[in-house]
Amino acid sequence: MKLTILGCYSATPRIVAHTTSQVLETRGHLFLIDCGEGTQVELRKHKVKFNQIKHIFISHLHGDHYFGLIGLISTFRLLTRETDLHIYGPKGLKDIITLQLKLSKSWTDYKLIFHELSSTESELIFEDDKVSVYTIPLDHRVYTNGFLFKEKSFERKLLIDKAEANQIDVAYYRKLKQGADVINKNGDLISNTDVTTDGPPAKSYAFCSDTVYNEAIVPIIRHVDALYHEATFLEDHADLAPKTKHSTAKQAAQIAKLAQVETLILGHYSSRYKNLEDFKKEARCIFGSVELAQDGKIFQL
Amino acid sequence: MKLTILGCYSATPRIVAHTTSQVLETRGHLFLIDCGEGTQVELRKHKVKFNQIKHIFISHLHGDHYFGLIGLISTFRLLTRETDLHIYGPKGLKDIITLQLKLSKSWTDYKLIFHELSSTESELIFEDDKVSVYTIPLDHRVYTNGFLFKEKSFERKLLIDKAEANQIDVAYYRKLKQGADVINKNGDLISNTDVTTDGPPAKSYAFCSDTVYNEAIVPIIRHVDALYHEATFLEDHADLAPKTKHSTAKQAAQIAKLAQVETLILGHYSSRYKNLEDFKKEARCIFGSVELAQDGKIFQL
Repeated sequence: MKLTILGCYSATPRIVAHTTSQVLETRGHLFLIDCGEGTQVELRKHKVKFNQIKHIFISHLHGDHYFGLIGLISTFRLLTRETDLHIYGPKGLKDIITLQLKLSKSWTDYKLIFHELSSTESELIFEDDKVSVYTIPLDHRVYTNGFLFKEKSFERKLLIDKAEANQIDVAYYRKLKQGADVINKNGDLISNTDVTTDGPPAKSYAFCSDTVYNEAIVPIIRHVDALYHEATFLEDHADLAPKTKHSTAKQAAQIAKLAQVETLILGHYSSRYKNLEDFKKEARCIFGSVELAQDGKIFQL
Repeated sequence: MKLTILGCYSATPRIVAHTTSQVLETRGHLFLIDCGEGTQVELRKHKVKFNQIKHIFISHLHGDHYFGLIGLISTFRLLTRETDLHIYGPKGLKDIITLQLKLSKSWTDYKLIFHELSSTESELIFEDDKVSVYTIPLDHRVYTNGFLFKEKSFERKLLIDKAEANQIDVAYYRKLKQGADVINKNGDLISNTDVTTDGPPAKSYAFCSDTVYNEAIVPIIRHVDALYHEATFLEDHADLAPKTKHSTAKQAAQIAKLAQVETLILGHYSSRYKNLEDFKKEARCIFGSVELAQDGKIFQL
């Protein structure tokens, strides 16, 4: 999994501070998560092959998370895209996009498929043989979801030397990779673990922005390899967090600790703070492995 | 009049090429003309005091001319704006904006006043004691207007020495500035031109984007000090201009010549062209005074 942060600041885009958008590359997919104003330019700047994006996930309908979507959809049209584009987001998003396409007489030639979300329970919204994506219901001022991206188990790694030594017919190699025991040329049962080892570990990533401190998400995100959790405030403005339904860095760390995640990535910083290191410092008092999202930063999970 | 080009490229925003937006400063007004995606960041970059914008003019509902509007409106809200904001644009624009404000539960605290346009005749859409703004009906793929900004005549300049020598009471000075003849202390009629000279000349600016070659606009824009006319193509793609309802640099120059304008400013270049000087060269074969719009460029009219 490779996570590219295109923007990680709250509220309004500024010259060197872009609003929320991320690209997650995993098992052949290029998932776009949120799409603040100017995302298409950031995609170009960071050389993301954005015509390969087939799935866009929008957490909620505050502008700093989706105002760039209509522009990206229009640019795809101008680039004569033909591939279907799936958009997952709150009910209402389809109306916003289609009204604008209608009034500009600019219907896309490619298929635009909206998956409008309204459930307050976690649900599976995308699945293929390699990856599953679930919603993470968040608690914010408007209907909001985070998203959990889970790779499925990789195939087992075949030890060819051992398979040959055990006189297994090559026709059975696929079955071995899938974890089955097989019969060899002499009719003996060969245990899978004698001729294979574990494949690379399946990774998982949870994106949680925007939300007030909410322990209800812990069972959904437990043990993920990386958790992006919003940290709009530091503790010195802890009173603002519940009022605006945002979190502090400390609260993000508490969630990371409860969920026993591997790494916590902080983001969605308020523009009132000039030194991002303060976010890391505050979170590290609670949880050891903390990283800071920054525009253009890449995380290899 | 001071014109700041924030963006002057067609179609899609790129790293160093912004879509259409301009700020016209005239007689205490800061008019925003079109508002492509990312305009709020360009306003910051070029240090425009954008909280002073009270009137926004949107030519048409293609994304490269208005996708930045909802973001700017939202940012004004976050900056706790209280001043009314007037928006002039095609019918439908109000629906687009209000749907998004509704779904994000982010109604503005300041008053948002839409002036939806649907006439195909030139009409006066704004007027105060210093400036008038008229629409310029353009011929494009969707309903489109250009805008004509006309300063009203400045007051006449009073020659105090001469007024005193003619024994005019100071109570009449205001009338003199307004151009009236007055009676002096001896009861003699003093001719206005004996004690005043012309004030600074009133300027005018016409913004015409996007449009196919259309001589119908000539009577409306005749003798303006500056005409911004779109030049999406060069003559080597002259066949594309009528098909897409755009113009070539040569056609823009022909309009400038027919309208006997002072200066022609070209813009709305297609990204297929790498050398903007070619636009100037082509237009200059027809019309002498040609300037190129470029992102960040300032024109003092």
